[in-house]
Amino acid sequence: MRYRRIPDETIRRLPIYLRVVSILLSQNRKHASSKEIADLLGVNHWQIRKDFSYFGDFGTPGVGYELHKLKKQIKKILKLDKPHKTVLIGIGNLGSAVLAYPGFNEYSFNIVAAFDSDPKKVGKKISGITIENVSKLPSLSKRGITTAISAVPEDAAQQTADGLVEAGVKGILNFSPRHIAVPKKVKVISIDIAMDLARLPFYMPAH
Amino acid sequence: MRYRRIPDETIRRLPIYLRVVSILLSQNRKHASSKEIADLLGVNHWQIRKDFSYFGDFGTPGVGYELHKLKKQIKKILKLDKPHKTVLIGIGNLGSAVLAYPGFNEYSFNIVAAFDSDPKKVGKKISGITIENVSKLPSLSKRGITTAISAVPEDAAQQTADGLVEAGVKGILNFSPRHIAVPKKVKVISIDIAMDLARLPFYMPAH
Repeated sequence: MRYRRIPDETIRRLPIYLRVVSILLSQNRKHASSKEIADLLGVNHWQIRKDFSYFGDFGTPGVGYELHKLKKQIKKILKLDKPHKTVLIGIGNLGSAVLAYPGFNEYSFNIVAAFDSDPKKVGKKISGITIENVSKLPSLSKRGITTAISAVPEDAAQQTADGLVEAGVKGILNFSPRHIAVPKKVKVISIDIAMDLARLPFYMPAH
Repeated sequence: MRYRRIPDETIRRLPIYLRVVSILLSQNRKHASSKEIADLLGVNHWQIRKDFSYFGDFGTPGVGYELHKLKKQIKKILKLDKPHKTVLIGIGNLGSAVLAYPGFNEYSFNIVAAFDSDPKKVGKKISGITIENVSKLPSLSKRGITTAISAVPEDAAQQTADGLVEAGVKGILNFSPRHIAVPKKVKVISIDIAMDLARLPFYMPAH
């Protein structure tokens, strides 16, 4: 089955829905209405109905959505229906926090390799993974690793991305506030803490 | 002047526009077209025109937007036209990375206080800030601190949020994957690394 073009904003919400569906399933629930899912997330239920309609699931009146099927559909759309071997570059404070982060498995990501440019870190084991030298980045392609998390300092971000692209990486989660230039076939998603913080005051009451 | 209700998705993009406008201004530019700003960001220029129209700026045909005015407008809408004293809770790897993060000043945030529950960390200085004991959280209200960044472990996230709300904090940037319950007058924005990573494969080419 081919899906209609799904808007970025729907894709942004799908991992959130996936988490809620997983929580409901863990409570032995079989079905849930859009209203219930909406209430759990604090959003409007018409938005959920619209988002789910992109992949042809309109639920059953009076019964709601079948959660097991819904989970499978969301995972398939997000291409999370198979595991993704992931590499982490840059094992400073941020990289160490990422390695210790508990939530990746839920979305089928396994961090299987870690790299740093600091010879003092290379060879050390952290969260069960031995840190390798960045000069070994080209080995990624042979190891079937196509997803990367880059937690390197700002001035190393572009060079790191270039190395990752050359090693066959197709998607990069980037923590640097700097814009990263990559070929069109590669996707970069940037997390910028300051930009998320910058949205906060708009929603805060005047004091 | 009162603004029309601005959609969340526009608010999400305003900090990005603010950065581009600042970069252009730093290059001594006075005006820019929506097309130019769009090309710098890799988005459609109609989206920029629509977003800017929410605050009544339609640019001048053939000249574009006046960048200095645009910067002022965006800052005013985001309530970034005055500085925000910010507190950081949880000085582990993630908290240390946040303290070292260079991008907050750009958006008028100053991290002026840091708290941790570990007695071994309390009293230590990191990135110029002395770590205080979480038992001192109630002092925030007297110090005019209404914005917080929470980088505590998952199982401490709700308790920390409760303490912050009690101390008069109105906005929390939350790094925990767990849902945080707060009163309606308080805004929580969550950064969930796994959820951002989960959007990546959708955009990656099949291999």
